[in-house]
Amino acid sequence: MTPAQLRAILAEVEAGQLTADQALQKVKHLPFDDLGFARVDHHRQLRVGFPEVVFGEGKTAEQIVAIAERLRDAGQNVLVTRIAPDAAEALRAHMPAVAHDPVARTAILTVERPTPKVRGRILVIAAGTTDLPVAEEAARTLEAFGHPHDRLYDVGVSGLHRLMANKERLTGAEVLIVVAGMEGALPSVIGGLVDRPVIGVPTSVGYGAAFNGLAALLSMLNSCAAGVLVVNIDNGFGAAVAASMINRG
Amino acid sequence: MTPAQLRAILAEVEAGQLTADQALQKVKHLPFDDLGFARVDHHRQLRVGFPEVVFGEGKTAEQIVAIAERLRDAGQNVLVTRIAPDAAEALRAHMPAVAHDPVARTAILTVERPTPKVRGRILVIAAGTTDLPVAEEAARTLEAFGHPHDRLYDVGVSGLHRLMANKERLTGAEVLIVVAGMEGALPSVIGGLVDRPVIGVPTSVGYGAAFNGLAALLSMLNSCAAGVLVVNIDNGFGAAVAASMINRG
Amino acid sequence: MTPAQLRAILAEVEAGQLTADQALQKVKHLPFDDLGFARVDHHRQLRVGFPEVVFGEGKTAEQIVAIAERLRDAGQNVLVTRIAPDAAEALRAHMPAVAHDPVARTAILTVERPTPKVRGRILVIAAGTTDLPVAEEAARTLEAFGHPHDRLYDVGVSGLHRLMANKERLTGAEVLIVVAGMEGALPSVIGGLVDRPVIGVPTSVGYGAAFNGLAALLSMLNSCAAGVLVVNIDNGFGAAVAASMINRG
Amino acid sequence: MTPAQLRAILAEVEAGQLTADQALQKVKHLPFDDLGFARVDHHRQLRVGFPEVVFGEGKTAEQIVAIAERLRDAGQNVLVTRIAPDAAEALRAHMPAVAHDPVARTAILTVERPTPKVRGRILVIAAGTTDLPVAEEAARTLEAFGHPHDRLYDVGVSGLHRLMANKERLTGAEVLIVVAGMEGALPSVIGGLVDRPVIGVPTSVGYGAAFNGLAALLSMLNSCAAGVLVVNIDNGFGAAVAASMINRG
Amino acid sequence: MTPAQLRAILAEVEAGQLTADQALQKVKHLPFDDLGFARVDHHRQLRVGFPEVVFGEGKTAEQIVAIAERLRDAGQNVLVTRIAPDAAEALRAHMPAVAHDPVARTAILTVERPTPKVRGRILVIAAGTTDLPVAEEAARTLEAFGHPHDRLYDVGVSGLHRLMANKERLTGAEVLIVVAGMEGALPSVIGGLVDRPVIGVPTSVGYGAAFNGLAALLSMLNSCAAGVLVVNIDNGFGAAVAASMINRG
Amino acid sequence: MTPAQLRAILAEVEAGQLTADQALQKVKHLPFDDLGFARVDHHRQLRVGFPEVVFGEGKTAEQIVAIAERLRDAGQNVLVTRIAPDAAEALRAHMPAVAHDPVARTAILTVERPTPKVRGRILVIAAGTTDLPVAEEAARTLEAFGHPHDRLYDVGVSGLHRLMANKERLTGAEVLIVVAGMEGALPSVIGGLVDRPVIGVPTSVGYGAAFNGLAALLSMLNSCAAGVLVVNIDNGFGAAVAASMINRG
Amino acid sequence: MTPAQLRAILAEVEAGQLTADQALQKVKHLPFDDLGFARVDHHRQLRVGFPEVVFGEGKTAEQIVAIAERLRDAGQNVLVTRIAPDAAEALRAHMPAVAHDPVARTAILTVERPTPKVRGRILVIAAGTTDLPVAEEAARTLEAFGHPHDRLYDVGVSGLHRLMANKERLTGAEVLIVVAGMEGALPSVIGGLVDRPVIGVPTSVGYGAAFNGLAALLSMLNSCAAGVLVVNIDNGFGAAVAASMINRG
Amino acid sequence: MTPAQLRAILAEVEAGQLTADQALQKVKHLPFDDLGFARVDHHRQLRVGFPEVVFGEGKTAEQIVAIAERLRDAGQNVLVTRIAPDAAEALRAHMPAVAHDPVARTAILTVERPTPKVRGRILVIAAGTTDLPVAEEAARTLEAFGHPHDRLYDVGVSGLHRLMANKERLTGAEVLIVVAGMEGALPSVIGGLVDRPVIGVPTSVGYGAAFNGLAALLSMLNSCAAGVLVVNIDNGFGAAVAASMINRG
Repeated sequence: MTPAQLRAILAEVEAGQLTADQALQKVKHLPFDDLGFARVDHHRQLRVGFPEVVFGEGKTAEQIVAIAERLRDAGQNVLVTRIAPDAAEALRAHMPAVAHDPVARTAILTVERPTPKVRGRILVIAAGTTDLPVAEEAARTLEAFGHPHDRLYDVGVSGLHRLMANKERLTGAEVLIVVAGMEGALPSVIGGLVDRPVIGVPTSVGYGAAFNGLAALLSMLNSCAAGVLVVNIDNGFGAAVAASMINRG
Repeated sequence: MTPAQLRAILAEVEAGQLTADQALQKVKHLPFDDLGFARVDHHRQLRVGFPEVVFGEGKTAEQIVAIAERLRDAGQNVLVTRIAPDAAEALRAHMPAVAHDPVARTAILTVERPTPKVRGRILVIAAGTTDLPVAEEAARTLEAFGHPHDRLYDVGVSGLHRLMANKERLTGAEVLIVVAGMEGALPSVIGGLVDRPVIGVPTSVGYGAAFNGLAALLSMLNSCAAGVLVVNIDNGFGAAVAASMINRG
Repeated sequence: MTPAQLRAILAEVEAGQLTADQALQKVKHLPFDDLGFARVDHHRQLRVGFPEVVFGEGKTAEQIVAIAERLRDAGQNVLVTRIAPDAAEALRAHMPAVAHDPVARTAILTVERPTPKVRGRILVIAAGTTDLPVAEEAARTLEAFGHPHDRLYDVGVSGLHRLMANKERLTGAEVLIVVAGMEGALPSVIGGLVDRPVIGVPTSVGYGAAFNGLAALLSMLNSCAAGVLVVNIDNGFGAAVAASMINRG
Repeated sequence: MTPAQLRAILAEVEAGQLTADQALQKVKHLPFDDLGFARVDHHRQLRVGFPEVVFGEGKTAEQIVAIAERLRDAGQNVLVTRIAPDAAEALRAHMPAVAHDPVARTAILTVERPTPKVRGRILVIAAGTTDLPVAEEAARTLEAFGHPHDRLYDVGVSGLHRLMANKERLTGAEVLIVVAGMEGALPSVIGGLVDRPVIGVPTSVGYGAAFNGLAALLSMLNSCAAGVLVVNIDNGFGAAVAASMINRG
Repeated sequence: MTPAQLRAILAEVEAGQLTADQALQKVKHLPFDDLGFARVDHHRQLRVGFPEVVFGEGKTAEQIVAIAERLRDAGQNVLVTRIAPDAAEALRAHMPAVAHDPVARTAILTVERPTPKVRGRILVIAAGTTDLPVAEEAARTLEAFGHPHDRLYDVGVSGLHRLMANKERLTGAEVLIVVAGMEGALPSVIGGLVDRPVIGVPTSVGYGAAFNGLAALLSMLNSCAAGVLVVNIDNGFGAAVAASMINRG
Repeated sequence: MTPAQLRAILAEVEAGQLTADQALQKVKHLPFDDLGFARVDHHRQLRVGFPEVVFGEGKTAEQIVAIAERLRDAGQNVLVTRIAPDAAEALRAHMPAVAHDPVARTAILTVERPTPKVRGRILVIAAGTTDLPVAEEAARTLEAFGHPHDRLYDVGVSGLHRLMANKERLTGAEVLIVVAGMEGALPSVIGGLVDRPVIGVPTSVGYGAAFNGLAALLSMLNSCAAGVLVVNIDNGFGAAVAASMINRG
Repeated sequence: MTPAQLRAILAEVEAGQLTADQALQKVKHLPFDDLGFARVDHHRQLRVGFPEVVFGEGKTAEQIVAIAERLRDAGQNVLVTRIAPDAAEALRAHMPAVAHDPVARTAILTVERPTPKVRGRILVIAAGTTDLPVAEEAARTLEAFGHPHDRLYDVGVSGLHRLMANKERLTGAEVLIVVAGMEGALPSVIGGLVDRPVIGVPTSVGYGAAFNGLAALLSMLNSCAAGVLVVNIDNGFGAAVAASMINRG
Repeated sequence: MTPAQLRAILAEVEAGQLTADQALQKVKHLPFDDLGFARVDHHRQLRVGFPEVVFGEGKTAEQIVAIAERLRDAGQNVLVTRIAPDAAEALRAHMPAVAHDPVARTAILTVERPTPKVRGRILVIAAGTTDLPVAEEAARTLEAFGHPHDRLYDVGVSGLHRLMANKERLTGAEVLIVVAGMEGALPSVIGGLVDRPVIGVPTSVGYGAAFNGLAALLSMLNSCAAGVLVVNIDNGFGAAVAASMINRG
């Protein structure tokens, strides 16, 4: 249930077009459905500003389908992240309208296109080609939440001219999501060029002493550019959630 | 040099009240002053939205005084963080107007009170009494940047009633800075209660397997509340910089 | 050999119904059987209060079957944890009465239903759906040991209302096993709500800086709720053993 | 306010000896006092079974004294842990009845001797002489909470005969707190000898690859004796809290 | 070339039965053969007391066969450790006399049975059933080197009676190799019972906070029993080499 | 575009043989081509002295082929490192002249043989047979860059005589790349024998406490031979790039 | 009580020169004295071959003196390791015959010079000048135990000629204790030169990525010279205990 | 003894101006002097290209003075690094010509000004003011070795304009030493701008998750700019040694 839907129902009650009992029928669900293995949270959007999102990793295809159906039945859009190809297949078998992106590992069912009030555009930046899955997870999440966004890829710090050739795009963004693996230096450099919030997403790209993203994570946490914010390794989704909160008008 | 100062000068040129040469005299400094051991950045506010801030740790009292004087002479406010008591003493000897807060370890010289356009109030939350120095560093930085803010202290997750008794203060904030040591769970709990950006600041409070803030840092990075953003351990300053960027109107 | 069985034999000797020699025949096993690759411990229940349990990981199906047969022949119940599907298959081929739970990865043969004297009910709590295998390992172990228990799943700290809606179940439990991955904050929150022992079980659920459960483990060890006890990552079995010791009447 | 005090007041109301208003006056405090830097929790004993305890590390002597006075004024006993010698001095200057133990680093003010209903005696075991401060912190906490307890010190695993000579003391205890640094093997050995809960407390005793208690911590978490429970490094207080919860009759 | 072979040749020269030139022909190999990808060391036995051993991990079957043939052709025994099943297969196809042990992952070709002068028997101890592959690697290496040895398995510290029932075997050994995973406490306990050198071998057995043998490794390095010596995780071969050096008569 | 090619064009312009417009057509590419997922950098050789190299890991075969074609079309040589066998297959299907080395995991297309001015020969040393893939990656890169080089393999520190027998080769090299896993001691020993730069490459060879190359990495960083330089674990390519920069005449 | 003393008493009983009762008086002590804070182990020499040694770190001067007196009164030699200068002072005040070595941080009281049967000489080697305190702790312990030993200092691997100039001393030793910090490569090099047991002692010497001895520790554990044995960081005492066990005739 | 000195002596012998015996007198020292606690290496310059340098940390003032005198007496220049103020004082008391730099923590005695043949100038770059001690250690070492060098300080990546304003200085250097703490990104950025060897020196500057230089170290090892070389944390000396080797003409 979205805030708009709730407001509409309450307005009908206020206008005498709906009795309290009738309204109750419409708002009949508990804040969460108990599926035994999961409690589906229908009021999350009211509470934290974005709907319940299904984290696909570690869940069976059956569990994902069950949760997705419950969300859809409650009139909510469905976003599944970290979905495996076979689970996506199973989901599409039940809901053919689901859009699956194998690079971003997302599956999206749009029941009603979200039209949030926003402040500007969000820019998703990736240091290298191998950082794309994480960057795309962020971009797809922004799309699911209805926030305007752009992509700027393969602009790592060892080729500053590629970054500098895009300086206007950097300074024109309202929020910047910067995805980088290896030494993770890109958020520090960008943080020194713009006056808007920069969210660094370390990726597990790299080898040896990259230690699965630890090097990039530490690098971003210690950024000499004050004000760089960091999320978990490979957490494109979390970066997009935070960026959309900041970007709300 | 603040954006307002620069705009004023350019307006005078535009209005014919100032020749280009005269303007040049006024904007005479290079973007940075070279002190040999440091390059003082006078145009940072134009570029990234807040003035150059002096990180006091690891600098001698002489170096701090020299940089602060250069900033003041350029008409900028001065904020020194992580300043040792004796360096603060030395600074006040040169600039009696400096306000020193020994808990926050900050020294502030206000040349001109900043009046940024803001969206709302920032709430600085501390889980425990021992997290205060970091929380106060954040609060003092917000004060120096001119952003309205409130404090809510000693509301750790092992006493949820203390937190819940302040739920309205949580939901009324535009941005929330959440400072916590030990297990660092507070940002996760607060992130599930509000729909505004939450910036977690792990502190080095704790002992044993807290590993000087590592436990709290990992906890915040792995928050089950999507959208929690994290800065370095004990980095109250960085959290405040990011919060003020988000809060800009 | 259970304490009850031993007591019965000794009572018969005392009553003159059994000679010492005859009793000896009945208690004929050494405290342990030497299988070459393993020494099966028949007196563990006498000594530490629960029978020998077979840790299935790293053992071949043949080894597991051999040990289980030895235990069964000595009149003991059999509990195998971390059993792989094919080993479970092999075990059931030899002992059709074995109950295998593929989620909990347990196999149980009940020779004689245990009826321990207990103080109350044990509550097994899981923060998220992906923590279920570990929570179920705990629940199945409690079942094998004959301790009454309940389940409460998917009540993570980012949705406190789901937890609070079950507050009475929390305060009604004698011991609480709290299973959580990611930031592992749930034991801290629950530890602040109840006055009974809380056993935290970190899980390897999560990604990136979760470091296979390290984040949750450190979080629980540093809990700001005094009195939270911790076991190894994913160790649902160990938590259940400890909980049943505490719950003994 | 202890549960007994609250029950007495309610009984007077029930008996008509006290009006609701009068009762209100007696239960006048909010659940917590807001000292600005700290919220003193007066109802913790009602909620989690033991009164608010002051963690002295990282607090100034002034803060400790202020919190202690508030607790005393509310009729509660005061336990300060990790108190520095000078803070203890300051506390005793305000409250001469405070008992300070420099080895355990505790300060205790007994307003009313607690007489909890208990199940048995708690045994505090220390592997070596250098583990004493942590073991004594546990013992002093048990004393403050009114739980009967004994001490067994310097019985490390490299001299099993010293431990075995005390086997009856081990098996006679209701709960065992086992404090050990270096390789931290003692809880594993004891866990194999008794059928009661064992709480391992790793200490930061050792050098080199002990890594400030990490070796002992990992050792205890990986104990081959199922059912060993672990608290944070050097956390004698936490072990005592948990032990007293388990020992409640 | 073994020391005995070399001595025989030199004696013949001394006795005038062999000219220097003829001797040179017999000792014709360089100390090492250059296979391009490997330099086979024929004089290692002379230099460090045991022949060149082939570490099978990370080598192709072809490389292993080529090195083994070079060693055999030089009249040396061949010991390959960490050999994969298919490489063992390939080796046996070339040298049918090779003895392959799939548990120990060793392959041995005995050209001439070694008969070193020894001080006593070496005892190989394993804490649990899952530690057997490492223990067997040690035992097979001792066999290849001709040192008398015994096995004592599944005597972990959580069941001290199993260990104590074998105390005479412990005290009768000249050197003890103690293999243990999980908390790795066994060498500490044994080190307190015997007056002969104890070599601890941590294994990667365990899960969660065992961190692939790190817990056991740290435990052994911090043993409270002075004089415990440690080798790398899972390094049964290294322990056997050291034990045979100590055991040389 | 190589520096030589650019110089030739500019010379023609200078000589009046080419108009600026014609030259522009020849230097028509932007410094980088935007393939969407990657920006191919055609001027890298001008800027940092070696052409763009494709890091194959984490890229699809399609991406690798597309980038390689763009480089070839711009007249550049192509070097792909960490290429998987199937990607190499795909590349050779498009460009049959590509040379693929499965041990080194490199694929090389030589459009024009590079003939850099050099100072001397580079020596690639490997401590053990299992270090060969990394050493060969270095050697193949040197080959692609046109730097003369030699190989010296299987000369680990536990057999110093093998190393010492090659001392002249060591002292005759202009730069030394020293590849070693396990304890990584070889660069320290060699650094004490030569007066030319030594580049240590730790490898992930080893097991247990080798921690995937961490032991060798730390060893090289702490070398007691001053002047040893280090690159990332398994980074034979990076070592070769640095060595060729040092070796430029 | 030494084995020789016990044997003498028993011989007197056998010879009828002593009654059982009289003998009892002489062997009157329990195997350990209970000092409350410590149990002094008088029979350790009988059990593990060397007398109880006092680890001075973390003990007060009073505790050290008390334990030392108890040992002396039982006729045992006293060895205190890691003794602080003031504790040594206090000890000498009570026992003027104590020999204190401030470099080795040892204090020794020789009641009766030990004359163990030995196999040969033990060589204590130190890589650098800053490793001396640890090497001297080993040497002083060997002296206290009566084992013949030599010193060879400042022979690190970056100057192989210094080591090679002493090759005969290396091959002449029965056991070698090799103390090294920084990259800890010396045991690997020496292990390849000798056929006797090598005990590596990593030291906390170094800085940066030496991580207080971790680099040297990992290096030694991963030694490519099979048979190198390792003790804890800075544990010169433990190395000497093990070496003397190996050296016993 | 420098190579030039040795060559001169040999030339005199060749010219008949010196007998072999007389020459022997002049080259009379062993390659090293044995001071007991240290072996002073007089031929290191011949062997590895730079004279023996004294690492002051962990050595007493007496030891430093003794070694320095031996070097000076052999006609060598003396460079002491990491020298404490009091040791420098002591050294100057014995050798008034010693130049002590308290920031760089170096002491230098120039017996004969070195005039090596060089290729160009070395540029020492520091990211921030607090990185100066390490950068100065590098610069002073270059001075002692006679290599021309320049300094460029306070040009961190968060203010790229400061770096870009000095681009010509970057591209004009023969070798670049880049000193950076915090996130350590500077070598990656510079490595992408120049075609000469870049040596990264991570510093322990930073706090929290900088982990004493670990973040910067990992960052540099994972640099996306191929060819960046790394030395130990804070190891300005090592970087200078390597740079001077590369810069030799």
